[in-house]
Amino acid sequence: MVLLSDTRTNAGLDRISTYKKMYTFEVPGERVMVLMTSGNLSVTQTTMARLQDAIDDPDATEDTSILKAKSMLKVCQMVGAVLADVSAEITQKLERNSQATASASLIMAGQRRGGEMRLFMIYPEGNFIEATPDTPFLQIGEHKYGKPILDRVVTPKTTLSDAQKAVLLSMDSTLRSNLSVGMPLDLTVIKADACCVDEYRRIESGDEVFAEMSAAWSKALRDAFSDVVI
Amino acid sequence: MVLLSDTRTNAGLDRISTYKKMYTFEVPGERVMVLMTSGNLSVTQTTMARLQDAIDDPDATEDTSILKAKSMLKVCQMVGAVLADVSAEITQKLERNSQATASASLIMAGQRRGGEMRLFMIYPEGNFIEATPDTPFLQIGEHKYGKPILDRVVTPKTTLSDAQKAVLLSMDSTLRSNLSVGMPLDLTVIKADACCVDEYRRIESGDEVFAEMSAAWSKALRDAFSDVVI
Repeated sequence: MVLLSDTRTNAGLDRISTYKKMYTFEVPGERVMVLMTSGNLSVTQTTMARLQDAIDDPDATEDTSILKAKSMLKVCQMVGAVLADVSAEITQKLERNSQATASASLIMAGQRRGGEMRLFMIYPEGNFIEATPDTPFLQIGEHKYGKPILDRVVTPKTTLSDAQKAVLLSMDSTLRSNLSVGMPLDLTVIKADACCVDEYRRIESGDEVFAEMSAAWSKALRDAFSDVVI
Repeated sequence: MVLLSDTRTNAGLDRISTYKKMYTFEVPGERVMVLMTSGNLSVTQTTMARLQDAIDDPDATEDTSILKAKSMLKVCQMVGAVLADVSAEITQKLERNSQATASASLIMAGQRRGGEMRLFMIYPEGNFIEATPDTPFLQIGEHKYGKPILDRVVTPKTTLSDAQKAVLLSMDSTLRSNLSVGMPLDLTVIKADACCVDEYRRIESGDEVFAEMSAAWSKALRDAFSDVVI
């Protein structure tokens, strides 16, 4: 599995900040889970804090800690429940002063030893859906600009290397078209049955490899555009 | 100028219909104007009906009929005022029974003899913006999927032929990624200073030229994807 997130958070155009949106939970060989966030920052930070508190609790059980849960499905139920509670609490606070609501969506990817590698999208209300062979990728946040390239190239047979290229080119299109998405990027690769992070890379705005790939893709797209006859 | 619209209108997934979203007003040699719509169908139909009634009125003046208005700017002011009135009236009706609001956005493109060829986007509130050399294209409706290709290839120097290719490929990406956009398509080309429609084409869902172009673009994109090295 290949996971990619940007780091831009904005509250209006003049309050732009960099926050990591990718969190990794790992017990190498036993389980690896990567959680990615989009939406209201106070919701996602509070959700992450509660999940971490539950992990750190000396009395943690398989029903409270996502590091002890028996399956990825159970993990998603726990994360979804925390997310829905936090959204409801923060929205209640906001509604005292305004009509605003606060919500967030999450992607949870991972594997527990003995189980399958699984990929879920968790909705603000806490319910979730899973990726399948018919729908081999999931996106949250500002997803439309980068969807066409994923629609065209990603299948269940896509190699990890091609999948990395696809998500980076998808993000490149989004970065060009929308100011609410920004570098640096976080890229994580997980290999099936390893139950650990195979590769993690932070791609900074000056990254030469990314810049070269972006320029090569621009050129390839323009050439492809020239080649098509109408 | 090259103008392209789809024809799909939906009120929920099980009420999908085909409605033309492109309206042409032409006095060949004197003026040509193309109006494209997105948003609530009752708002756009009522807006179009009022504009047409004003044109047909035997007492029409340059202040009431967009076919007599002295400039494209004046045309946009008139259209924007009608749009804002209609949106407000329909929203008022809706609010008696629900929280729903109704709005629409328009693109107005055209030229009047002696004036410049101009391209405007009219917002639901009736205000509008104009395309410039820095922003040589405008989009309304489901625009995000198709924006990356336009961002990469459209400049003020793009030929009419390349511009046709660009808008068709942009629409092709959107058609693949979003069910709310559907064939047939309407394509209109206007040449500067001709003050008439140079070409109008309806592209039906079985159109062979469009299907070939779409297949060629898919292949070119996949080849381009293979060529890029990370």
